[in-house]
Amino acid sequence: MSFLEVVNKLGEKVRGSLLLIGGAEDKYGDKEILNRFCRMVQEKGSYLVVLTSAASQGASVGLEYQRIFEDLGISEIKILDVDSRNKAESVENAQLLEGAGGIFFTGGDQLRITSIFGGTKVNNSLKKAYEKGTIIAGTSAGASVVSDIMIVGGKGDESAQMDSVQLSAGLGLIEELVIDQHFAQRGRMNRLLFSVAYNPHILGIGIDEDTAVEFRPEATFVVRGSHSVTVIDGKGITHSNISEIKGKQPLALLDVKIHVLPALYSYNLQKRKVIIPD
Amino acid sequence: MSFLEVVNKLGEKVRGSLLLIGGAEDKYGDKEILNRFCRMVQEKGSYLVVLTSAASQGASVGLEYQRIFEDLGISEIKILDVDSRNKAESVENAQLLEGAGGIFFTGGDQLRITSIFGGTKVNNSLKKAYEKGTIIAGTSAGASVVSDIMIVGGKGDESAQMDSVQLSAGLGLIEELVIDQHFAQRGRMNRLLFSVAYNPHILGIGIDEDTAVEFRPEATFVVRGSHSVTVIDGKGITHSNISEIKGKQPLALLDVKIHVLPALYSYNLQKRKVIIPD
Repeated sequence: MSFLEVVNKLGEKVRGSLLLIGGAEDKYGDKEILNRFCRMVQEKGSYLVVLTSAASQGASVGLEYQRIFEDLGISEIKILDVDSRNKAESVENAQLLEGAGGIFFTGGDQLRITSIFGGTKVNNSLKKAYEKGTIIAGTSAGASVVSDIMIVGGKGDESAQMDSVQLSAGLGLIEELVIDQHFAQRGRMNRLLFSVAYNPHILGIGIDEDTAVEFRPEATFVVRGSHSVTVIDGKGITHSNISEIKGKQPLALLDVKIHVLPALYSYNLQKRKVIIPD
Repeated sequence: MSFLEVVNKLGEKVRGSLLLIGGAEDKYGDKEILNRFCRMVQEKGSYLVVLTSAASQGASVGLEYQRIFEDLGISEIKILDVDSRNKAESVENAQLLEGAGGIFFTGGDQLRITSIFGGTKVNNSLKKAYEKGTIIAGTSAGASVVSDIMIVGGKGDESAQMDSVQLSAGLGLIEELVIDQHFAQRGRMNRLLFSVAYNPHILGIGIDEDTAVEFRPEATFVVRGSHSVTVIDGKGITHSNISEIKGKQPLALLDVKIHVLPALYSYNLQKRKVIIPD
């Protein structure tokens, strides 16, 4: 099912939502984004699961978020460190996800998540939870991982060349877009441009630190947080040399449209159109 | 006179050209860009002046380029370190520029050039030389400085916010565009986007390291070197919040068109159109 079909379906039944954070979200001040997530979870009336699979130090990362989410008024929080395929096949873990009001993916390495989750019971339950309406949030690697196609590598601050970016299959909760995070802070324009150049049907969404996109059932997202989200729309690309270059050879890419969107600006994914706040 | 008027005029009489380099050009291998500059200068049949005003260690930078240009077959090279307003008012220095076949601005700090050159005899002679057909080249700060409006500051790898970029008046050899250098390598997309957002009539040209744009009399430029040039065309911008934000407040900017151009791709400045090589 394509992302648009999913969200259309959600649109009918007003279910699931996603909050994808560009990393380094405020944890000590207003905590705007994490607070928003907690309010969304509270509306669901069930517990919150913090999934630390992306982090190599899962326990300490889990504890940090537990404290923050408790401070923000969430009474029931489960830390789940699914760090092996074995744990990903656990019926108990799978059921824990299915019953959650919210699931939060911490940062770390997105390949840890997909290589552990791929094809397991926990993965199936995550999808079921999402389709039932559980709020799924992720920061940094945890934001990249939810889409069908995800960025797993590629240096920032580099010219656009054939080895700029490595892509892989993500968790597939949303399709037809690719998410990048720490976007401005790590100079990731060229690797996201490259991701779009491969197949201009894919929309590129680059999320700055302490900034988030909140996907809503009606196939739009709204920007939250202190910085901006860069949308790369490749539908109008008239020419690229991507099929002809190798290794360090530089990219040619013509007529890419971009938008830079701060908080409260929305984007309609079906119409590929920005909605300016009143 | 606008840049287009200058180049149109040049077009009639086939005079002056510019070679603007994004910094860190190859000095030890094929030296493709510097070699190209030397071939252009040799066609002019006069000496080459290396202007080290941007560099704080002018003497050593000058010597390094002298050796390279000698290796590349230039027989007569003058190192000119105009490092004071007094030297910029010297008739001798002014005459040296006017008689040159090529003038090369080293890197450093573009404000050193403009604060020393602005309104002086040397500045007038530079413009005369350019209009007479002297090949003007610059790398890094030396590339930024030639346009009418230039970037003097602004951190890379930062979100697009009101303090992203500081602009100033450059040497004014070309107008209606703003040049940035070390572009991909220092994550400067947002500061160039901002420069264009101020006035979308201005074309943004971001030059990667070891990459150059060669401006030709017929109002086009062609890309040279190993990486890419990013062109930011703001003519189609439909909305921005730049007049409403302050300090760290994030930018909104909708419908910016960009092109990523490797070597041999050209751009027609009048038509704002890319010319794909055969």
